[in-house]
Amino acid sequence: MNDLSPKVQNQLSMLQQIQQQLQTILSQKAQYEMAVREAKRAQEEISDAAEDAIMYMSVGTVMMQKKKDVINSKLAEKIETLELRIKSLEKQEKMMQGKFEQLQAQIKAALEGKGTPTAA
Amino acid sequence: MNDLSPKVQNQLSMLQQIQQQLQTILSQKAQYEMAVREAKRAQEEISDAAEDAIMYMSVGTVMMQKKKDVINSKLAEKIETLELRIKSLEKQEKMMQGKFEQLQAQIKAALEGKGTPTAA
Amino acid sequence: MNDLSPKVQNQLSMLQQIQQQLQTILSQKAQYEMAVREAKRAQEEISDAAEDAIMYMSVGTVMMQKKKDVINSKLAEKIETLELRIKSLEKQEKMMQGKFEQLQAQIKAALEGKGTPTAA
Amino acid sequence: MNDLSPKVQNQLSMLQQIQQQLQTILSQKAQYEMAVREAKRAQEEISDAAEDAIMYMSVGTVMMQKKKDVINSKLAEKIETLELRIKSLEKQEKMMQGKFEQLQAQIKAALEGKGTPTAA
Repeated sequence: MNDLSPKVQNQLSMLQQIQQQLQTILSQKAQYEMAVREAKRAQEEISDAAEDAIMYMSVGTVMMQKKKDVINSKLAEKIETLELRIKSLEKQEKMMQGKFEQLQAQIKAALEGKGTPTAA
Repeated sequence: MNDLSPKVQNQLSMLQQIQQQLQTILSQKAQYEMAVREAKRAQEEISDAAEDAIMYMSVGTVMMQKKKDVINSKLAEKIETLELRIKSLEKQEKMMQGKFEQLQAQIKAALEGKGTPTAA
Repeated sequence: MNDLSPKVQNQLSMLQQIQQQLQTILSQKAQYEMAVREAKRAQEEISDAAEDAIMYMSVGTVMMQKKKDVINSKLAEKIETLELRIKSLEKQEKMMQGKFEQLQAQIKAALEGKGTPTAA
Repeated sequence: MNDLSPKVQNQLSMLQQIQQQLQTILSQKAQYEMAVREAKRAQEEISDAAEDAIMYMSVGTVMMQKKKDVINSKLAEKIETLELRIKSLEKQEKMMQGKFEQLQAQIKAALEGKGTPTAA
């Protein structure tokens, strides 16, 4: 570590930070994508049921009895909201990915330009 | 690593420990904040329902049928408890953050004061 | 780090990537295995119940009242799907494990062949 | 890394493995402890309810209507099982902690006995 210039050390720690932010974004995206899949499976499941079938929808720890069409429209709304959030996360992901690659290239150039410290 | 003084090595491992504790606090806080948001969404959801609407509340794996006003007051109580815990975590977070920055400054000073080992 | 050849540095970062992919596979497998255990426990639980017992099945946030035999066949289907996915993950795991060991041996050989840099 | 003897390098990687195993044990224990707390809260919640109150118990994705006393005994059984698992994890934790400290002391002794490599 001590052999690296303060600038490169700084860039390395920025690289690590970006990597962590990317991981946070990716895991958030994976959670939203799973929620979308689940909501779509629920829509499918409901589509087979009679209009007056007894069903509940949960919000956190509370389950409320609701009619099929109400649940259907709530699911559609949920999917729409989640898909907007996923798109926004994908924008952030691309931006971070770009920053990451740029920084990685800068670090690589700095290390190669410097040569090995014992050779100096 | 061997080039660092035992004192600095010690400070570096303390820094890592604080970072892990900070991460634990932050993820706990995020969980409580999500639970608050969920409880508030449930309150909203319930507010539209008739007084005699059929609803359940879950505690772990058990769901019990309860009246709207009972669920409402239980949710309010839950939100209050969670918000107190979040405030307490935020205090811990600030304290840890302070320790982290202090230690980081000490390490930086020690490394800069020492110069590069090959230059000695 | 600077003392390692670019090739070995590259192999080390590949090793880290494989390790992360292995962890993702293992945690995914653990989740599927837990879902299988849960579905089997549900099947057991149901087997004691009367044919006309009131029961619900949840898909995401939606719970629908269903007959015992419908739930039973849905659980059987779910277990089958999950077990196929687990088998596929185990194949990936074995392949990754093989790559990991191969790369580890290559790195070890490179480091031993090189000797310590200060001895040169 | 190259400055460390193969033996110490080996001990360091064992130390890392033990640390990971300890983390797995601790997170498993935390999950079981949370499940115990939840089951106890459910028992409390149920204790206030009428004998004929409508309640459900979930196993995975299936919810079955059950009588209060049946749920109560199932919760008691669950708590007992979980507490046995927690005790077993605590035994493993202690054993791992012992191994960890022993290995840490060995590594420290090896590094101190060796002196700094540049001073040789």
